[in-house]
Amino acid sequence: MSLADQLPPLSHEGVHEARRRIADRVVRTPVVRSEELERVAAHGARLWLKAENLQRGGSFKMRGALLAVERLRAVGSPGVVAQSTGNHAIAVAMAAAEHRLPAVLVLPTDAAPTKVRRIRETGAEVLQAGTTLAERIAVVGDVRATRGYDEIDPYQNPDVVAGQGTATADLLHQVEAVGGHLDAVVVPVGGGSAIAGACLATAGRGIDVYGAEPTAVPALTAALRAGGPVTVDAGPTIADGLRPDRVGQLPYDLAHRAVAGVFTLDEDAIADALRLVLVHARLLVEPAAATAVAGALRLAAEGRARDIGVLVSGGNAEPSLVASLLDGRATT
Amino acid sequence: MSLADQLPPLSHEGVHEARRRIADRVVRTPVVRSEELERVAAHGARLWLKAENLQRGGSFKMRGALLAVERLRAVGSPGVVAQSTGNHAIAVAMAAAEHRLPAVLVLPTDAAPTKVRRIRETGAEVLQAGTTLAERIAVVGDVRATRGYDEIDPYQNPDVVAGQGTATADLLHQVEAVGGHLDAVVVPVGGGSAIAGACLATAGRGIDVYGAEPTAVPALTAALRAGGPVTVDAGPTIADGLRPDRVGQLPYDLAHRAVAGVFTLDEDAIADALRLVLVHARLLVEPAAATAVAGALRLAAEGRARDIGVLVSGGNAEPSLVASLLDGRATT
Repeated sequence: MSLADQLPPLSHEGVHEARRRIADRVVRTPVVRSEELERVAAHGARLWLKAENLQRGGSFKMRGALLAVERLRAVGSPGVVAQSTGNHAIAVAMAAAEHRLPAVLVLPTDAAPTKVRRIRETGAEVLQAGTTLAERIAVVGDVRATRGYDEIDPYQNPDVVAGQGTATADLLHQVEAVGGHLDAVVVPVGGGSAIAGACLATAGRGIDVYGAEPTAVPALTAALRAGGPVTVDAGPTIADGLRPDRVGQLPYDLAHRAVAGVFTLDEDAIADALRLVLVHARLLVEPAAATAVAGALRLAAEGRARDIGVLVSGGNAEPSLVASLLDGRATT
Repeated sequence: MSLADQLPPLSHEGVHEARRRIADRVVRTPVVRSEELERVAAHGARLWLKAENLQRGGSFKMRGALLAVERLRAVGSPGVVAQSTGNHAIAVAMAAAEHRLPAVLVLPTDAAPTKVRRIRETGAEVLQAGTTLAERIAVVGDVRATRGYDEIDPYQNPDVVAGQGTATADLLHQVEAVGGHLDAVVVPVGGGSAIAGACLATAGRGIDVYGAEPTAVPALTAALRAGGPVTVDAGPTIADGLRPDRVGQLPYDLAHRAVAGVFTLDEDAIADALRLVLVHARLLVEPAAATAVAGALRLAAEGRARDIGVLVSGGNAEPSLVASLLDGRATT
């Protein structure tokens, strides 16, 4: 059977099959509700926080990486290479280490130092290249050509998209297990794997899916306007996980008709959300995850949903940034 | 039936009965393991963090307060009064608000501002008096005499002790549900309700119970040495929840034969543990909870236990303190 024959169906069922495959290798992260956070910020809505900041590797990206690396290992891959602004790289590095595969990770030169350190701790090789997606993709191409490694693309790989969707599938399952029902889910948008996965996971369930992205990097907003992925001029943002300046074609194809809307959040809104979740819900989340929380608070303020699930995508925040946010110092 | 007839048995069974009574009014907080935290700090041990920082009111004290207020409400109490360094007061204030009972809470003048604010938000009255237990007890006496309110003592009330024990009972249950077995549990010691409850919850299970208290306020260490509760000279500590300068007689009676040992942790060890849990396990914990984590890390370093449960008692930390710890500034 060829590798292509084994690709997961990019469907609701495919996500649930992926969920079963990784169930015993990921943390069943809790869904946290904080009455205190809701009281101070949620305008009467309930926020169901899927705490993937407590996931292995510190983000939900572990899910897709495990699936993708496992499949490549099974077909005898000599090694893997991936580009990422950070969390996908950490996840691929950890998954490759578990499967004893060499790994090269390509990050931007302005990647969060904590993320770079975490990758190196797995024994993987880190290459830093430029600040744009195009620059990283070029380096990945070199590694593929010179070493014969297989790429695990963070937005185009079907295992990755299905795997990221399992976080939303878990969230739905956990909310229903306590008698709840979501009106909407809000997920952060970088390259688009989370929102594509969320659209698959919620298909046919009557749940609105919203994206949340920094005003500084409105890649999905621009893609929806243009009718396809376009490269945007990226401004500086504390949400280092959401710096891809273009959404992937596969996520776009899966999500563009299904999404109910996209929130763009400015830096103050992202910083406020990070601080609110830390102080009131007692969870350390990274700015990308805070962006989704900020989007959920916007949705709540508009009164458009009562039960809102939030993909709290990761917790790999720089301690110095968190300290400055708690002190009320400048956010960028 | 008189109130006294209804008091819970202070036994293993009493804790489990308390657990059933409050099950639908407390958060079933997750037990979090962080492979990253374990790798950097746990010397090969597994740490099972009972994340009561995610509990209603921000600490495990909600458990005992709900039980105690419910019982007083049932017998027609006109109102409740309690002294506390903070978390017990928040919990009693919230429980009283739910039961529509007036509440007066007596805190030290150096109580954490965040805790005072949280109590006032419930509509309860706050009185601040001195810095010692004796000063607070005197004010509680005044309120009882002048208003006829019933006291909910944080260390001597059987409902409170049994209720606090439910956190440890939950922890054991949750660890066993995933096939684990604890060698030891470490709980923070202020007035002693947590460790007394833990001794009840673990009775007959072959699990060592350790206390953890600041070197600055070694109330249990001194009590064990003296053969009964004694008032210690309390030095300054960031662990505001562990400032009681004397353990209660009831907790002492329940715990003194059962505890395997008590760790005293200096301010640097407490601060380090808070930072480690925040950065690596992505949980915001208050210094009292960090004291228990620091004790668990000491136990792990000594190689005396492999599976260690930790009562992460609360998350009501001052943002300014957390910022200073993340920045590596002075801790006291």
